Amino acid sequence: MADTRFEVIGVPGLPMVEPGDSLVDLIQQALRDISESLQDGDVVCVAQKIVSKAEGRLIRLDDVEPSTAAVELAAETDKDPRLVELILSESDEVLRKKPGVLIVRHKRGFVMANAGIDQSNVDHAGGDQALLLPTDPDASAARLREQLQSLSSVSVGVVIVDSANRPWRMGTTSIAIGAAGIVVLDDRRGGEDVYGRELKVTMINNADALATAATMVLGETIEKIPVAIVRGLNLAGDSQNASIINRPLAEDLFR
Amino acid sequence: MADTRFEVIGVPGLPMVEPGDSLVDLIQQALRDISESLQDGDVVCVAQKIVSKAEGRLIRLDDVEPSTAAVELAAETDKDPRLVELILSESDEVLRKKPGVLIVRHKRGFVMANAGIDQSNVDHAGGDQALLLPTDPDASAARLREQLQSLSSVSVGVVIVDSANRPWRMGTTSIAIGAAGIVVLDDRRGGEDVYGRELKVTMINNADALATAATMVLGETIEKIPVAIVRGLNLAGDSQNASIINRPLAEDLFR
Repeated sequence: MADTRFEVIGVPGLPMVEPGDSLVDLIQQALRDISESLQDGDVVCVAQKIVSKAEGRLIRLDDVEPSTAAVELAAETDKDPRLVELILSESDEVLRKKPGVLIVRHKRGFVMANAGIDQSNVDHAGGDQALLLPTDPDASAARLREQLQSLSSVSVGVVIVDSANRPWRMGTTSIAIGAAGIVVLDDRRGGEDVYGRELKVTMINNADALATAATMVLGETIEKIPVAIVRGLNLAGDSQNASIINRPLAEDLFR
Repeated sequence: MADTRFEVIGVPGLPMVEPGDSLVDLIQQALRDISESLQDGDVVCVAQKIVSKAEGRLIRLDDVEPSTAAVELAAETDKDPRLVELILSESDEVLRKKPGVLIVRHKRGFVMANAGIDQSNVDHAGGDQALLLPTDPDASAARLREQLQSLSSVSVGVVIVDSANRPWRMGTTSIAIGAAGIVVLDDRRGGEDVYGRELKVTMINNADALATAATMVLGETIEKIPVAIVRGLNLAGDSQNASIINRPLAEDLFR
């Protein structure tokens, strides 16, 4: 059941994240710097970018050898063949293509542009680099949750946030690519509306909503705020992760 | 520029809304009941359902005469022909169909299931009814904004919130079908990332993000909380409305 008010608290002050960094240590330090500490029920929303960086998912394009398929697709879409190679290696299926854009089904089930691979807010000083999604974002979320809970002695949720485009809406909102410790999909089917009529198709996506709310303080140009705490909602739950959000292929009307 | 923290305040206590009701009066009364008042920069997020009800968009299905096309499509999708007639009359194009679902392009440009027509939280005591979207949601938002500002002497934004399904993600989040007084699409292209590299494709959809954040306190079964205030973000802007969110047909890769 939703509560009637909540707060979203951006956490600034994290340093640039490097491979092998302990996110939990960086987050705890940044919280101390703003005189905040985690409370029971908080959901810690973390930008995908710093999770990927900590996990060493930054790839030097010079180290990538594009396949023939990648070279052809790159020519067709006017993209860097090395980047296309990375996109293909991260994906199960290319759904749509146009100059500059490849819409794919990521190996983890997400339908997204360019397999979520990003070149912004990445250091290119030593040659062009690209940042892949975490290998297993739900596992990353679960690990971070355990570490945060063990250090703070409170019960929290974790959401890993990625910005996402949608086919018919301009402008990005966000999605949860990883989640732990929250009710991801709140299934209210079978409940009743205010007139006592059965609700038929109401399933709320808490994880994507949390990710999107967090984005209002994260944003793309402000990697200096890569973490946001959502406080005041009662969404705790243990058994779901973000992979359940992917709509089954058999129900996909827009392949 | 995003701020570093904000609050979402659900506004309970509104009565069931009837055609002709003044939403601004009901909202102001409900705010007084929780000892809240609007502040400069607040964004008032209002559930589509109460806007539609106040505007008299509730239709008795017994008054609907289905066309031959509606009868055929109803048989094909196992839906009420009168409801299908309403869906078709509200739409420019049927994009996909399957039993129970019609994905259409609404006359206002939104791609959505069943043209946003809803039968939950609607009084069916005098026979089945269906609730259509407001005739012009951006105009509804602008009108409500003017009235709120004139009564409260502060500057606010208004977003009209509808829940929405997405093709590849389970569970609903929300979209803004109407907006006034906010920067709807925050175009950051041409700006720089933290390494000084130009941002190429970053345009944040504030309106949909506000709608989705608001939904965390609105929800479907709690029409008793049909309004939420988002407080603490600096998103004021005058020239945009929600219709600009619709992706141009020429750019639609999933028709």
